[in-house]
Amino acid sequence: MSDPILTLTSDFGERSPYVAAMKGVIVSIHPPTRILDLSHRIRPQDVAHASYFLATCVPYFPPRTIHVAVVDPGVGTDRAPLCVRAGGQYLIGPDNGIFTGVMDRGGEPEIWRLTEPRFWRETVSPTFHGRDIFAPVAAHLAAGTDPEQVGTRVRYSVRLPGPPWKVEGNRILGSVQFIDDFGNLITNIPYHSVGSAAQQVTISGRPVHPFRWVRAYGEAEPGSIAVLGSSDGFVEIAEVNGNAAHILGVPIGAPVELSL
Amino acid sequence: MSDPILTLTSDFGERSPYVAAMKGVIVSIHPPTRILDLSHRIRPQDVAHASYFLATCVPYFPPRTIHVAVVDPGVGTDRAPLCVRAGGQYLIGPDNGIFTGVMDRGGEPEIWRLTEPRFWRETVSPTFHGRDIFAPVAAHLAAGTDPEQVGTRVRYSVRLPGPPWKVEGNRILGSVQFIDDFGNLITNIPYHSVGSAAQQVTISGRPVHPFRWVRAYGEAEPGSIAVLGSSDGFVEIAEVNGNAAHILGVPIGAPVELSL
Amino acid sequence: MSDPILTLTSDFGERSPYVAAMKGVIVSIHPPTRILDLSHRIRPQDVAHASYFLATCVPYFPPRTIHVAVVDPGVGTDRAPLCVRAGGQYLIGPDNGIFTGVMDRGGEPEIWRLTEPRFWRETVSPTFHGRDIFAPVAAHLAAGTDPEQVGTRVRYSVRLPGPPWKVEGNRILGSVQFIDDFGNLITNIPYHSVGSAAQQVTISGRPVHPFRWVRAYGEAEPGSIAVLGSSDGFVEIAEVNGNAAHILGVPIGAPVELSL
Repeated sequence: MSDPILTLTSDFGERSPYVAAMKGVIVSIHPPTRILDLSHRIRPQDVAHASYFLATCVPYFPPRTIHVAVVDPGVGTDRAPLCVRAGGQYLIGPDNGIFTGVMDRGGEPEIWRLTEPRFWRETVSPTFHGRDIFAPVAAHLAAGTDPEQVGTRVRYSVRLPGPPWKVEGNRILGSVQFIDDFGNLITNIPYHSVGSAAQQVTISGRPVHPFRWVRAYGEAEPGSIAVLGSSDGFVEIAEVNGNAAHILGVPIGAPVELSL
Repeated sequence: MSDPILTLTSDFGERSPYVAAMKGVIVSIHPPTRILDLSHRIRPQDVAHASYFLATCVPYFPPRTIHVAVVDPGVGTDRAPLCVRAGGQYLIGPDNGIFTGVMDRGGEPEIWRLTEPRFWRETVSPTFHGRDIFAPVAAHLAAGTDPEQVGTRVRYSVRLPGPPWKVEGNRILGSVQFIDDFGNLITNIPYHSVGSAAQQVTISGRPVHPFRWVRAYGEAEPGSIAVLGSSDGFVEIAEVNGNAAHILGVPIGAPVELSL
Repeated sequence: MSDPILTLTSDFGERSPYVAAMKGVIVSIHPPTRILDLSHRIRPQDVAHASYFLATCVPYFPPRTIHVAVVDPGVGTDRAPLCVRAGGQYLIGPDNGIFTGVMDRGGEPEIWRLTEPRFWRETVSPTFHGRDIFAPVAAHLAAGTDPEQVGTRVRYSVRLPGPPWKVEGNRILGSVQFIDDFGNLITNIPYHSVGSAAQQVTISGRPVHPFRWVRAYGEAEPGSIAVLGSSDGFVEIAEVNGNAAHILGVPIGAPVELSL
């Protein structure tokens, strides 16, 4: 069997030594652990971004992967530290909704509240549970510790509000849930809900026109607006070879309306 | 023998879940694969940047390394997906010129057009071949699959136009091919072509003066302009302890003239 | 025993191929080496930032870890290339003070000046010792080479000036030594020196008010200023759910005064 795989996701950025400290803690506890960085550029303290991010990539990992995710504005307060087993994978992080998008893969998740300080670092900083609780617990799981040992089973955990998209007559109402590094707008409207039927697209009350439904960016002219199914299954609005978020001036959360 | 080494290069950035999804696909297919990130900050859709990047680092890797590179504005169109064996290493990515700089290392490359969907993910998104074609094919190669199995041999692949530098009388004409994170201007003029003979340096028609030929940055005063041989063998223009691109206001592609 | 762990820290950024070239050199010399990126976004040529960064994360790594750190404005001049053994770990990089913060962990460090070109790349670029000297020497250490073989023992190495904080009457004077990716101001004043006794906080001569001493960010209102002990043991000034550096307009090095 291969060495255990442990991924890291955070909003710590790359100028700060926080991610590096977590890596040190992990390989000190279980040296063979294979660490994969997913992202350390989640928007600061944006739990919804982290949840979307994890929902979009965690399903591609194999069973027994251990994912540590630290976007944790409530660190040091009474928000719980969690371990979750969902779809055969482990999720370690704060109980603030960060795992909303991946919790329910593969049925009812098993959730443990981390309660056993013997698996933590001896001194726990009230501002850095990533280093002092989450990383060491994850490394112990990588080393073979049973999750039943690290905490106490609980039934509930914080979930972010579900995606508020809906159908009203011949209109579908949703919002921009993510803007990727290309400036492509990923809405929260499932692509299969509209196919290419929508004739009009409105963002923040302003019609997007002209636009063209395409399967791939390259089917429309450079500089034009294309509407398509995103690689994770939502309606996406892109500027071909450009940055739709910039030219349309659209932030995350902007309302999107599709009219049939 | 060590576990296989697989590198990732892309323009996906770090806020987006695309790279993470590729990593999940790879370790799901062949868990022992050792993944090394090269860069995910290639300028968006800038195939020439990617080609320069790969040309400058791929030669340092050992035989059998598998390099996956995804800067792919034509994804989903009829541009082919490729596997190349060059200098004993594997290159996996779109046929858009991204491998121009490393194709011909070690003689005639072997090129396969990827044609065997049994090595792809079951559903292929028209906008994300990185996850659905390139990553899985690379992981299968890492697992020992013969490249003959993943595609069909072809003779030609897209190459970017060669570096347009030339000698005219006592002048050498070239351009800025890359600006690194320090703001150093890397031209496309081979250093051995001029040594330290050039007396005058002109960028975008404006003379750079004063400047000094040096071997290392530290040989000139902080804040002064130094001209030197870059670590990859080209004429480089740098501001010592500063950012030449900013103070000279020079973009990639700017014409450079050296006068003897 | 696990495969050797080698970390990389630099100011090379992610658009440039320099880090990638170092990785290639390392796995070419000793393929099983497990490479961990710590950061490649140290501020360009900011040796003090690198020293703080390493001081804050290196202690969490296990013995025998090999840390390569390249922030090297003096590359190619007569500044020495070093190997240091401190606290059972190895530090490889330029002799410019970059290891000041980690040198003296675990008593007197052993220091070698790298003098043996047989462990370097055959051609050494005067501008890229990271690729041509530090990476190959580190890879040879990873492969089991004794540090006595790679250089000559020396007694002294460059240290950055110590942290200039002091007590004057009922005032503690220090400065901002680091601003993390959240905009939190990490001073150089040890937290245990003040506990929560300081009644007034002044930065760059301007009083910070109102503020509140807290243990964790979440104990104060979003948007308010919190003063606390940082996760690495210093007095820290933060805006809850915000960016203190932006709202206070404070750069690294700004003087900080705490009045009891």
